[in-house]
Amino acid sequence: MDRYGYNGKVLHVNLSTKEFRVESPPEIFYRQYFGGRGFIAYYLLKKMTGGEDPLGPENILVFAVSVLGGAPAHGLCRFSVGAKSPLTGAFGESEAGGYWGPELKFSGFDALVIEGKSPQPVYLFINDGKVAIKEARHIWGLHTGDAQDIIRREIGDERARVLLIGPAGENQIPYANIANELSHISGRTGMGAVMGAKNLKAIACRGTQKIRLSNPELVAEVAKRVARDRNEHPLSYGLHWIGTPGAVLHFNHAGTLPTKNFREGTFAGAEKISGERMIETILQKREGCYACAIKCKRGVGFKSDRFTVDLRYGGPEYEALAALGSNCGIDDLEAIAKGNELCNQLGLDVISMGNSIAFLMECQEKGLLPASWREGLDVSFGQAEVMLKLIEDTAFRRGVGQHLAKGVRGMAKELGPEAEKLAVHVKGQEVPLHDARGKAAVGFGYAVVEKGADHLVSGFDILYERADHPGFQAVAPLGLLEPLGVNDLGPKKIRLFTYMSFLWSFYNCASVCNFAFVPRSITTLNELVHLVKGITGWETSLWELMKVGERAINMARAFNVREGFSKKDDNLPERFFQPLEGEGPLKGFKIDRQVFQEALDLYYGMMNWDKEKASPTRAKLVELDIEWVWDCLPPHIKGGH
Amino acid sequence: MDRYGYNGKVLHVNLSTKEFRVESPPEIFYRQYFGGRGFIAYYLLKKMTGGEDPLGPENILVFAVSVLGGAPAHGLCRFSVGAKSPLTGAFGESEAGGYWGPELKFSGFDALVIEGKSPQPVYLFINDGKVAIKEARHIWGLHTGDAQDIIRREIGDERARVLLIGPAGENQIPYANIANELSHISGRTGMGAVMGAKNLKAIACRGTQKIRLSNPELVAEVAKRVARDRNEHPLSYGLHWIGTPGAVLHFNHAGTLPTKNFREGTFAGAEKISGERMIETILQKREGCYACAIKCKRGVGFKSDRFTVDLRYGGPEYEALAALGSNCGIDDLEAIAKGNELCNQLGLDVISMGNSIAFLMECQEKGLLPASWREGLDVSFGQAEVMLKLIEDTAFRRGVGQHLAKGVRGMAKELGPEAEKLAVHVKGQEVPLHDARGKAAVGFGYAVVEKGADHLVSGFDILYERADHPGFQAVAPLGLLEPLGVNDLGPKKIRLFTYMSFLWSFYNCASVCNFAFVPRSITTLNELVHLVKGITGWETSLWELMKVGERAINMARAFNVREGFSKKDDNLPERFFQPLEGEGPLKGFKIDRQVFQEALDLYYGMMNWDKEKASPTRAKLVELDIEWVWDCLPPHIKGGH
Repeated sequence: MDRYGYNGKVLHVNLSTKEFRVESPPEIFYRQYFGGRGFIAYYLLKKMTGGEDPLGPENILVFAVSVLGGAPAHGLCRFSVGAKSPLTGAFGESEAGGYWGPELKFSGFDALVIEGKSPQPVYLFINDGKVAIKEARHIWGLHTGDAQDIIRREIGDERARVLLIGPAGENQIPYANIANELSHISGRTGMGAVMGAKNLKAIACRGTQKIRLSNPELVAEVAKRVARDRNEHPLSYGLHWIGTPGAVLHFNHAGTLPTKNFREGTFAGAEKISGERMIETILQKREGCYACAIKCKRGVGFKSDRFTVDLRYGGPEYEALAALGSNCGIDDLEAIAKGNELCNQLGLDVISMGNSIAFLMECQEKGLLPASWREGLDVSFGQAEVMLKLIEDTAFRRGVGQHLAKGVRGMAKELGPEAEKLAVHVKGQEVPLHDARGKAAVGFGYAVVEKGADHLVSGFDILYERADHPGFQAVAPLGLLEPLGVNDLGPKKIRLFTYMSFLWSFYNCASVCNFAFVPRSITTLNELVHLVKGITGWETSLWELMKVGERAINMARAFNVREGFSKKDDNLPERFFQPLEGEGPLKGFKIDRQVFQEALDLYYGMMNWDKEKASPTRAKLVELDIEWVWDCLPPHIKGGH
Repeated sequence: MDRYGYNGKVLHVNLSTKEFRVESPPEIFYRQYFGGRGFIAYYLLKKMTGGEDPLGPENILVFAVSVLGGAPAHGLCRFSVGAKSPLTGAFGESEAGGYWGPELKFSGFDALVIEGKSPQPVYLFINDGKVAIKEARHIWGLHTGDAQDIIRREIGDERARVLLIGPAGENQIPYANIANELSHISGRTGMGAVMGAKNLKAIACRGTQKIRLSNPELVAEVAKRVARDRNEHPLSYGLHWIGTPGAVLHFNHAGTLPTKNFREGTFAGAEKISGERMIETILQKREGCYACAIKCKRGVGFKSDRFTVDLRYGGPEYEALAALGSNCGIDDLEAIAKGNELCNQLGLDVISMGNSIAFLMECQEKGLLPASWREGLDVSFGQAEVMLKLIEDTAFRRGVGQHLAKGVRGMAKELGPEAEKLAVHVKGQEVPLHDARGKAAVGFGYAVVEKGADHLVSGFDILYERADHPGFQAVAPLGLLEPLGVNDLGPKKIRLFTYMSFLWSFYNCASVCNFAFVPRSITTLNELVHLVKGITGWETSLWELMKVGERAINMARAFNVREGFSKKDDNLPERFFQPLEGEGPLKGFKIDRQVFQEALDLYYGMMNWDKEKASPTRAKLVELDIEWVWDCLPPHIKGGH
């Protein structure tokens, strides 16, 4: 194995026994699983057997950077956190940028694998290869910001990077998030609740260990070029200037801005909550992640008659603007910014939170909400103050928050079949703020991705709509050579979806930022391959990297199959099979059920999965060099092979 | 489609009607099918419907260079010829180097698609985009060399490159070959018989149209580097110095030199027929193909008491030395060189010819040969003069040659079950001179490749045996990261086989020489990707190129399925399931039937093919963006999908 150039360490921590163990995996492990999602899937499959309680000590919580993470080039700043999800019962996984992932690497580890449950609140401090479990009773119950201040003070290093949960995680709200540097959020699948259930408030990292680069000149060259060209590149500059909030008006124009619980696709108040308006009013700073020249994140801070919003918690991204804004019928930008801050302070995923509120609002409008739930509150669309109250109440399971804390699926189940028709979730995870009507591949991704509805599965349909689009041109190295319409869900689109899903899965294995390397970005796919070589010294290829991504998908799928997930779970909310209401260019459009079912069968076929069991065939696992995963599957799945 | 940089032309010729048509396919056609095997499979699927007589006018004969062919860098010199094979009834395809392929490109065409049958012998002359069908009655019956001389004289250009058949092709011997420049041979699957059946003696090309290069500097740089480093690189220099004949002693040492009809693996006379001996005696020149600095081919010419051998016909490669030598028990190097010259003059595939003779020799030894077949001849192992007579007799279907002209399968069928156990063929094509016992993946390739036993399917097991082997290191970009033993036929080896088969299939689509770009060669896989970009301007990747190769395999497979081929045809000769006899390190070794069957099932699974029908699933075809191939499959295959 002397031909490879990477070696690293994985830290195992048992919170029940307070034991540590350092693993030094062989290099082939790094090359095949890479990090992030790949590592999470590996350890979850190996260390669990299926049927575990997501909030029990037997759940395994993995934080994983990657082979690339922390290298000094833009877009290699991310990390993944994963466990069995308390929100879905499925493979749970969430990515975030910021500075914590690179710092974990600097402290000597590629990943943390956390088992057991501490008898009392603790936090971890990882300092240049040394590990300490520290008492956290005094910070239990604190907002993220207050807790971070205390932790930094205690460990005596203001430059320590701290990842933590808020009260929502402690209270095991199934969609509790995890923050690092307060504004970089691992939002989805309730990983904050898993930390809370383990009595783990935070993980602080500090390290001085440099990332070893095989070819530092090459890495520096890419980094320099991106920094130089950022302002010349339309997408990169746009991300810097207006960021994701730029999508509000764009989607509103296209008729795909989720409005009033995804009932409509245009919002009368869109301009008031737009990225453009934000720049004119509450935007204070443009921020970014480790080593990134693009700096797409928003820094919002203000003090008005009504609210004080602290700049430290970042600012609302597109998802927050639509989740707490248009989807709740709210056009009050300051209130949305406050709601976003509350979510980050309390540790709640803003997508699931906003959608849960929007669902409740529509239920009230339709007369499906019992008075006992409302506790006298007018939960109508457009009620900004109510929205803010509901966020706080959810984190503490107070009042209506007791219901909201169940998430959309949980609430709908109690409210009955009429409410279930309005419940916009997949596998129990609330849908991100992208309407499947108008983005066929994004919608398809909601249905099939193992972690429940997620929008970062396979790129955006709009990238591939026109042959002259730079996004479309960028995917040519994958053999994707023909433009396909945004609402096309035919065989060629499923092919495109499948290929792109391998790439995006690789990104999630590799700590790679979608914005920095997404097709149409400032960096080409082949530059990414060169960058991998420059960092690791591996003579690699897009073939090998795509297979890393595909491998991780198959492992995540195997995890779900072991948990009893089946074909029926790969579905879309009823709402998307119904015509879009309201006004706008897509009015009346709906997903065709039969087209969707055919696409699903074709997808399983393309994945080389058993169509009835929606599960990888043994041959596919062997082809991906993970035959061991076959042994993780239950007997009824393996039968007949 | 303005992002692509390639456009070219395909010439369609109907020999029945003498009509021409020039097709200008869209660029996506070039990018997806690339040339060679890809084009052949495309036109055979599109222009035939199944069940055609390979020797009838309805067979389609395709000559195809590629997008890369003729570019001025080493190893891009090849072309493919294909049709339904008269030897196998399956997908027929054969590759050759030399100068004809590039010259076809210089004359303005990427490919020729020939339909119909001329009422009398003709040849084609393609001259800078112009096409002429010329009378060939006066050269019908001539040796290849004589015919070439006359053609060049007639068209008045000594620099015209001529591809032609000998008397064997005219007489439709099912393993008749095609020569270009007399010594560059399209040997396998009987494509010379298809030319003969169409009354097409030759195709001469002459052109001055330069290959348009997107980045001429890049191409020149690679070419220069290879020329400079050739002598420093062990494999390239070895290929130049001793060429493929170097394999004789190497294989004899390993115990895998096919001897006496594959009965034994070592040959007492190996040294006498070795490449080393050739250098000391009959070797006159080291020759090569268009733009190649390696020059691996042999030039043998001599005049002895017994034979005169003409340098123009090249010299025996390893396959000829083993086919006419060890496998016939013959240790007479001069006689082998003469036999090789005869095959090239008469137009017979030396592999099929040698194996047919070896089969007959063993049948005589075992008393399975009726006296009526022998016509008084002593067809014993070791009879060099008899071997030479049999070659001539075969080309003209004289005496014993009438039987030899049926090939091994045809003869065995007539001789009965005991003889069939000695018949070393797959799908009717005689096996190349590589024993499946000792090269598990090569043997597996014999079984599954669509064109019948062929050794250039997926690399050689020995490349992947040791982690420190440069061949093994070279395949790392494909994610092949673990060494595997030469006789390993387990799941990981089938995975390796499958991936490598995509690469080698791409080579056959792309006019790429295996020796120039085979793993462990002077050029890396990533350099090949850069070269494709340098020639075409396409932003491509190893992913896209591997998919080109996989696409072509699936199309060839679909062709076979349409012709009625099924799982039972993917098999190995009985001999390989029996212990190797004689002496040598592999004495007693045999292929395990159950391991082989399990490997076969796994292979179908990895290919995403229906395991019972041994046929591509619709999903696989859609994934490769060739859903149209599904419509070429017969109803009983498509049922249930």
